[in-house]
Amino acid sequence: MLIATPQSLHFEAPLPLQSGTSIRAYDLAFETYGTLNANKTNAVLICHALNASHHVAGVYADQAKSEGWWDSMIGPGKPVDTNRFFVIGVNNLGSCFGSTGPMHINPDSAQGQVYGADFPVVTVEDWVDAQARLLDRLGIETLAAVMGGSLGGMQALAWTLQYPSRVRRAVVVASAPNLTAENIAFNEVARRAITTDPDFHGGHFYRHGVVPKRGLRIARMIGHITYLSDDVMNAKFGRQLRHAVQDAVASADYRYSTQEVEFQIESYLRYQGDKFADYFDANTYLLITRALDYFDPARTFGGSLTKALAAARSKFLLISFVTDWRFAPARSREIVKALLDNQRDVSYAEIDAPHGHDAFLLDDVRYHSVVRSYLESLAQEVGV
Amino acid sequence: MLIATPQSLHFEAPLPLQSGTSIRAYDLAFETYGTLNANKTNAVLICHALNASHHVAGVYADQAKSEGWWDSMIGPGKPVDTNRFFVIGVNNLGSCFGSTGPMHINPDSAQGQVYGADFPVVTVEDWVDAQARLLDRLGIETLAAVMGGSLGGMQALAWTLQYPSRVRRAVVVASAPNLTAENIAFNEVARRAITTDPDFHGGHFYRHGVVPKRGLRIARMIGHITYLSDDVMNAKFGRQLRHAVQDAVASADYRYSTQEVEFQIESYLRYQGDKFADYFDANTYLLITRALDYFDPARTFGGSLTKALAAARSKFLLISFVTDWRFAPARSREIVKALLDNQRDVSYAEIDAPHGHDAFLLDDVRYHSVVRSYLESLAQEVGV
Repeated sequence: MLIATPQSLHFEAPLPLQSGTSIRAYDLAFETYGTLNANKTNAVLICHALNASHHVAGVYADQAKSEGWWDSMIGPGKPVDTNRFFVIGVNNLGSCFGSTGPMHINPDSAQGQVYGADFPVVTVEDWVDAQARLLDRLGIETLAAVMGGSLGGMQALAWTLQYPSRVRRAVVVASAPNLTAENIAFNEVARRAITTDPDFHGGHFYRHGVVPKRGLRIARMIGHITYLSDDVMNAKFGRQLRHAVQDAVASADYRYSTQEVEFQIESYLRYQGDKFADYFDANTYLLITRALDYFDPARTFGGSLTKALAAARSKFLLISFVTDWRFAPARSREIVKALLDNQRDVSYAEIDAPHGHDAFLLDDVRYHSVVRSYLESLAQEVGV
Repeated sequence: MLIATPQSLHFEAPLPLQSGTSIRAYDLAFETYGTLNANKTNAVLICHALNASHHVAGVYADQAKSEGWWDSMIGPGKPVDTNRFFVIGVNNLGSCFGSTGPMHINPDSAQGQVYGADFPVVTVEDWVDAQARLLDRLGIETLAAVMGGSLGGMQALAWTLQYPSRVRRAVVVASAPNLTAENIAFNEVARRAITTDPDFHGGHFYRHGVVPKRGLRIARMIGHITYLSDDVMNAKFGRQLRHAVQDAVASADYRYSTQEVEFQIESYLRYQGDKFADYFDANTYLLITRALDYFDPARTFGGSLTKALAAARSKFLLISFVTDWRFAPARSREIVKALLDNQRDVSYAEIDAPHGHDAFLLDDVRYHSVVRSYLESLAQEVGV
């Protein structure tokens, strides 16, 4: 069993941000698994999505059920084999899991208050810059691979554009070259649920001793629905009544209530919402969904993704899931096409998994075998 | 131009409800268009969906932009031709547009207070029973057709099961034999946004002089996203920036804000949410979404829709829209199949309109011509 140990590094030099401002000084939380080889060719950077962290793989020594969020993918003998690769998980700026974020002291605050809503807007490109500095400190010039799903895939793609010579291969899973209007819309509803919660206080709820839990719950419930497929929700919950499940009876009558839980799916969503509201930071939610909204490499190239990806030098593996309706296969294919337009080396797999967007986190044998063989060939390429 | 005149009838006899309780006495708001013929064979009942009313067609004499919600479909010379048919629009119990609902005085309240959250849970079947009583009062024994989209289509279907001998034809548009888990989930998130709004007060907000507008806004934003297709949202809004649209410039830079409007789609959704929160009743929202959740005619037949629809005697027209992902064509086809299993006379049209669920309200020439020819043949059948 892989034992994970969180680490942290402090960065004194300000980080310039896309918005024109900068972060004065900051910490990055990270974890590493496996061993960096002598010529430092076997580093794999894992980028996280919305509500994940640097704790990518393994468990904490003294903590039950503490598996990292991509533990099925990464570890000894797993598709990303930590016996061969040196894997780095890093928590992004603005997050609430250890790296500098809205809950930390704002060095510009005379009263020593936390950032809250004053934490600067960070983008995918800013995160990549911060990750590059972390690699500098770890003495790693070139990544064997950068890898991520969803928003993490956007970071992997951005790496190949901002630091083309530092990335050998990029693995971009269940991602997109930008968000559609519908995806921005779902993010916006979630944000409005948070910002219109009376406990939000314009993002400075910390000093009021409250948390906008109502809004966080709604945001999480919306997210949860859209990360699953209709089919998997029907298979898992269907129209099952909550009290039929509780009483272990085959059928039960409706209880006819507008406010109480009637269906099992309602109970599940409320539970997920409650759990999320207990640990996630509201300002982080806003920051991370905005990073998703803003990502759009084609934007400064007149909308041409082909032109935008001309800078890339890496090899690519793109993976999408047939039932993923938030980051649909068509969006991955746009990236594949733009890379092929630039004569890049691209592999693409479209996996017929039933789990919607969540599939990228799950253990599907076809999905894992695609990643495994891609990483096998990478291991040979870098001699590990 | 068709001039509409709202009417109302009072019903003294209590209406027994599926939940086991009853409504003591109640009013139904309705409108009629066209003329009932001498042998009363030309009546068409229109059932409404979530946020609509009895004002189906025409305009109010003294009110600009007051077209009924299905005015493109119904009127002189329109697919449902009021020169030939006597069309009835009725507002359902529990609504907030004139029929008895949560904002009305609860006759069981000693203090003469409004129902609020104490308004009984009403179902599709209850609405149909109330509509049948209205027809009794209007002296109409048999409907030439009952017709509705979405939740309105569920009522049309229920009519053919509860009053099989009173319905000649049923037109069921963009509907389903029940809601999937995903649909219940979206309803539940919207309801939770409302019920966890501090201004909701357990549904008795009227006596506090407030309205849970935050929750209503979120509910409407969620609804709006899911009634549209991803494609139509991209065509209409894409990733357009709000201030680029306002300043009428081709491109503009990001403003980098987590709380302010950045994209045009956000502005649109906020506007729709605000508008809705100004006129819609929160308890009505809960009641109507619950009626959607509860509808499931197969439920008392061991899950067999074929058995459930065996009672139907009408002819049927089913229509669905390819891009409708909340009431997908597959759900209409389930109804078609179950009717065919029962050797019923069924026509089915699947319209390739881009507008998602909203398509049923819009003016699509293929859609309208299907309804027009179906109603033409009905006109001949009933001799008008």
